[in-house]
Amino acid sequence: MEFGDLIHTRRSVHEYADEGIDEATLESIFQTVRLAPSSYNLQPWEFLLVRDDDRRETLQEIAYGQEHVSDADTVVVVLGNTDPTDHAVAVFDDWLTKGYIPDTDTRDQLVENAESMGDQSETDRRLWTTTSTALAAMTLMYAAWDHGIASCPMGGFDADELVDVFEIPDTYEPVMLITLGYPAADAEDGTKQRKGRRPVDEFVHYGEFEPTAETTVTGVTHRS
Amino acid sequence: MEFGDLIHTRRSVHEYADEGIDEATLESIFQTVRLAPSSYNLQPWEFLLVRDDDRRETLQEIAYGQEHVSDADTVVVVLGNTDPTDHAVAVFDDWLTKGYIPDTDTRDQLVENAESMGDQSETDRRLWTTTSTALAAMTLMYAAWDHGIASCPMGGFDADELVDVFEIPDTYEPVMLITLGYPAADAEDGTKQRKGRRPVDEFVHYGEFEPTAETTVTGVTHRS
Repeated sequence: MEFGDLIHTRRSVHEYADEGIDEATLESIFQTVRLAPSSYNLQPWEFLLVRDDDRRETLQEIAYGQEHVSDADTVVVVLGNTDPTDHAVAVFDDWLTKGYIPDTDTRDQLVENAESMGDQSETDRRLWTTTSTALAAMTLMYAAWDHGIASCPMGGFDADELVDVFEIPDTYEPVMLITLGYPAADAEDGTKQRKGRRPVDEFVHYGEFEPTAETTVTGVTHRS
Repeated sequence: MEFGDLIHTRRSVHEYADEGIDEATLESIFQTVRLAPSSYNLQPWEFLLVRDDDRRETLQEIAYGQEHVSDADTVVVVLGNTDPTDHAVAVFDDWLTKGYIPDTDTRDQLVENAESMGDQSETDRRLWTTTSTALAAMTLMYAAWDHGIASCPMGGFDADELVDVFEIPDTYEPVMLITLGYPAADAEDGTKQRKGRRPVDEFVHYGEFEPTAETTVTGVTHRS
């Protein structure tokens, strides 16, 4: 799909058709997610795909009962690795092989940089991984919609319960949940007028940052 | 551009042409950024555009001397509002007007939810805004490339210095910097082989989360 159309027609959808997503389609979507940028190209993202009924129902409870969690074909638990060193050697070896850096000394320095990031506070490491992992999550939602699969990102869930039930090691940050499914023909997110957005001149600042807590959420016109 | 082509040709570019970006193009890009999803549609993002020579040089120092900061036409300081209540009433009034929620009681409950999020720890509020703001930042990079404008996201900068020099109120989280510019014809990021990526079967987990710290970064083939 043309990117402009993709952006303008993507909606967060809560009602899904019965049609299942086949694994080849999921594979294709995640081949696209791979290409997202990340801090130092360290790609700290991990995606746990929950597809069976029992576990989606468990996840629905963890997400405070939100119905679309069990209605969706697949729920993606988006996780961020808080350890920047995990993939550092392989990533910087790749830079060396491709001529992005001149020598092994530079490679070693980059590995040391990753180790320094690993020495940061837990909060900084959580923020670090959340930033890169959210870039991949956004790419996931666009790539899914390019395959006709709707999504809904969710921040409302009990992270402690999630980590406990799904046995997530404590070095991984639960960043968000994303439901995936073909949209129901009559999904209200598709038929209702799109939710409004803050105007550009309110959130884009030239030269000086002069934010306003006020907002004037306005309609979004589908371009012709 | 077709979304698949956009994704496969987007690169993080460090070398820019002399050609400037006109304001109408920036406006068009940010009209697209508007449409990104966010937690409760609260759109906590703010973008400070730094375009004059002096301030880009200041920003380059803050970014530890990285040259592309002063070479780029525009450097975007991506900021996240850590106060979820700022736009809550306007956003939920919009839901009410459009029939997403049935009545003012529900609207008031949603405003209360935003207030509860505002009562979370500073760390949780920073993570909250970083997640939504990074979704918009990813959209910005894709929208820019759809206009032929390359970008490079950067996490390496002195956030304390940034906040001080650019007078950023302490309720805003500096999420990342993004350089924007038309790519130089001979930009090495465009001519060198693309940096490798972790394979899908390493970061996608079906049913059970079994991460590996090992990685085998592999090449990315441009689809035909």
